[in-house]
Amino acid sequence: MTDKPDEKKVTPRSQDFAAWYNDLILRAELADYSPVRGCIVFRPDGFAIWEALRDELDRRIKKTGARNAYFPLFIPQSFLHKEAQHVEGFAPEVAVVTHGGGKELEEPLIVRPTSETIINHMFAQWIHSHRDLPLMINQWCNVVRWEMRTRIFLRTTEFLWQEGHTAHAMRAEAEAETLTMLEVYRKFAEEILAIPIVAGRKSAAERFPGAEETYTIEGLMGDGRALQCGTSHFLGQNFARAFEIRFLDEKNELVHPWQTSWGVSTRLLGAIIMTHGDDQGLRLPPAVASTQVVIVPIWRKADEGERVVTAARSILLALENAGIRARLDERDGVTPGFKFNDWEMRGVPLRVEIGPRDVASGEVVLARRDIPGPAGKSKAAMNEVAVRATALLSEIQKNMLVQARAAMDANTHPVMSYDQLRTQMEGEGGGGFADVYWCGNPVCETKIREETRATCRAIPLNQSHPPGKCVVCGEPASERALFAKAY
Amino acid sequence: MTDKPDEKKVTPRSQDFAAWYNDLILRAELADYSPVRGCIVFRPDGFAIWEALRDELDRRIKKTGARNAYFPLFIPQSFLHKEAQHVEGFAPEVAVVTHGGGKELEEPLIVRPTSETIINHMFAQWIHSHRDLPLMINQWCNVVRWEMRTRIFLRTTEFLWQEGHTAHAMRAEAEAETLTMLEVYRKFAEEILAIPIVAGRKSAAERFPGAEETYTIEGLMGDGRALQCGTSHFLGQNFARAFEIRFLDEKNELVHPWQTSWGVSTRLLGAIIMTHGDDQGLRLPPAVASTQVVIVPIWRKADEGERVVTAARSILLALENAGIRARLDERDGVTPGFKFNDWEMRGVPLRVEIGPRDVASGEVVLARRDIPGPAGKSKAAMNEVAVRATALLSEIQKNMLVQARAAMDANTHPVMSYDQLRTQMEGEGGGGFADVYWCGNPVCETKIREETRATCRAIPLNQSHPPGKCVVCGEPASERALFAKAY
Repeated sequence: MTDKPDEKKVTPRSQDFAAWYNDLILRAELADYSPVRGCIVFRPDGFAIWEALRDELDRRIKKTGARNAYFPLFIPQSFLHKEAQHVEGFAPEVAVVTHGGGKELEEPLIVRPTSETIINHMFAQWIHSHRDLPLMINQWCNVVRWEMRTRIFLRTTEFLWQEGHTAHAMRAEAEAETLTMLEVYRKFAEEILAIPIVAGRKSAAERFPGAEETYTIEGLMGDGRALQCGTSHFLGQNFARAFEIRFLDEKNELVHPWQTSWGVSTRLLGAIIMTHGDDQGLRLPPAVASTQVVIVPIWRKADEGERVVTAARSILLALENAGIRARLDERDGVTPGFKFNDWEMRGVPLRVEIGPRDVASGEVVLARRDIPGPAGKSKAAMNEVAVRATALLSEIQKNMLVQARAAMDANTHPVMSYDQLRTQMEGEGGGGFADVYWCGNPVCETKIREETRATCRAIPLNQSHPPGKCVVCGEPASERALFAKAY
Repeated sequence: MTDKPDEKKVTPRSQDFAAWYNDLILRAELADYSPVRGCIVFRPDGFAIWEALRDELDRRIKKTGARNAYFPLFIPQSFLHKEAQHVEGFAPEVAVVTHGGGKELEEPLIVRPTSETIINHMFAQWIHSHRDLPLMINQWCNVVRWEMRTRIFLRTTEFLWQEGHTAHAMRAEAEAETLTMLEVYRKFAEEILAIPIVAGRKSAAERFPGAEETYTIEGLMGDGRALQCGTSHFLGQNFARAFEIRFLDEKNELVHPWQTSWGVSTRLLGAIIMTHGDDQGLRLPPAVASTQVVIVPIWRKADEGERVVTAARSILLALENAGIRARLDERDGVTPGFKFNDWEMRGVPLRVEIGPRDVASGEVVLARRDIPGPAGKSKAAMNEVAVRATALLSEIQKNMLVQARAAMDANTHPVMSYDQLRTQMEGEGGGGFADVYWCGNPVCETKIREETRATCRAIPLNQSHPPGKCVVCGEPASERALFAKAY
């Protein structure tokens, strides 16, 4: 019998955030390195989180009226060159197929880094009249970007994502769609992933290549670094012009539609880990946990074991019947203490402990992952476990957002001077959000980036400040922006 | 007002099966050609069928104990060469990435044509002890095979599929898993896609490259050609040896596991179309139809219109509340007749017709897509439409399988002589299944293929025949086999 967590130890988060992150992913079997440079394997426990969040987001996207489709993985190389900024942004990082079926191709194919080009080529075939609009398409797929430095989930050569692409008759409609999807993402991140979000505009320097405006949902990770969790782009008519998409409007004039694109990726798995994880390991929001409740039976003598396991199985059944993703840990050869540590490390939101005395008294212990120690424990009558677990999971889901928001608020600092900004961003750690007046001049933005490594993460949508002065140059600034070091 | 189906006419199936197939797919907006050789675009109405069947099959696969994961799109070229038959089968048809991030790669990467190699490379890292077995993984992904002749859904350069990969401690377990999955596929095809299936073994010539035994679910299309709808492979220890997967068994000896792989693809969309479609267009089994019931309001005067549309909307709501995927066709500018034709062409299983007299009498007409003309029509009280539609959809689902099985039976011929086989396979059409005694000798199989273009589609699992004589050579034959021309 052993109660050591494992030979493969997880570095405490408080000691080394980056090492903790990698250790945790490997130890919790969320992902593994692959023999292909920069590509990872999503193992079942990691992929199950992706499936849960994908299915929920898919429902929300479909509710807005978008429908799923699937476009080719390969894109003719010439397509990338049709939109000037787009090619500049993506050409350096594409993978190129030069041979197929044993022969060299006449025109090389690139593996999609994003699908604006091929999708808009098809939109040009499908859009002829204002009656064909709005056209709202979403695609779940893999994309490839040849990244120099990779990090599991956050930046990998191949990743999974959804990319929405829409075309509208009127500019205002497309602008509204861009913000509608930003809000879908914000609510999804907060309600399902329990990740508090700053929703805002990107600066011109941080825009998607080919977009007129890029909006972001930005999160703040446990080490004080920001993470872009999703983006929504207003593309204007750039791609419509490049791909010659035209339609007859109600006045019978041939005009270009207005477009958007928007996406989130498997990077969200990294966001969940880095927002919620602690020294004990992963903490999963119940909405995306593949195991929401684990039952650990505790006993020493064989006759106790039989009674305890029988009771545990009936609890498992009750939980499953209540629609809870539950699991009973019947492993031999490891102690209950080992199991507690193991499931805490794997992030299971709620644990049911049941021993011979519990069976006798008809009660079990429920232990919350979001509140450590005795404060997170409570008792429940055996026949009420499912009801109590349902209520607790809902509480845990909400509490994890509250905890994460408190951490973000504590790590967001109104900064009044450039010196204060530099001090905040000193050192190897993150530094959190610096909330500053910025005049909007890219020169000031570049100075901040070069001297502090902090970039403009978001110009929040809701501005309720009086006008002020730019933290760098002192010129008038009407808006505040959040700067941070970022992943 | 127009009641012509469309400028884009669909060739009648009875006139030209291949033209009908392509016309129908384009006209029903299931898919479109793409600018990339051999690749298609899955449009929303086509992709929705894939989503419905994928979600249902995914549930059934998970029930067997397999879990989803995701492995890299790219595979080092050298991996393909580790299993001799596998490389022979796939090397000629791979797409090769030679450049990434602007540089030539040291080792080219192939785009996965199937993932045995990379998955088994990972299995070697994960499998150490008999306690790690069985390991049962499934993956939904895109794969690429450089096909010479392509056909929408049936054979495309890129397609979508699921591929299951399992490893077991004992040979018998892996053999049982191979047949378990074959049976999952058979039931799925019959219950959900309403496609009658012959489940059987493939001949050695038709085996998956690297498998010891390949099993197939074989369907018979409306033109009398067979279509392989899914396969399940017993891989023996071939890949385990090639990728050095070893585990300590219960006797503490280091041995190779026994393995299987199994898959179905977007080819099933073609199978649905070619099994059920008719001269009027597509016919979708209710289980996979994105619109199961369409409501067509019929009226002439504006005041009638208001009453009819109001009633139609309340029926829509009732259908949706009953969990039916329903749709109300409120289009202006086209006649009810146009709408009838249009939705028949798109394959919607059930139509609700409602006019002013129906509103007055509190009744509507229900028209089944699977039974043409008056025989398929019935009346239902307005407040019972949802209940009646639910029952009818279930009947339609069953009846479509009955109809398709009758067509397959009528097109399956016990053949007693080689002359009879040749006659059956004459002409450009399909010819159906020839049910023959075959001695198992590849020489006889080759003769049949070369002289009649029919291949061995399946050696059915259930053989209840006395021994006979090979239809080609007259030698003793213990088994009967189904030969057919195939897609």
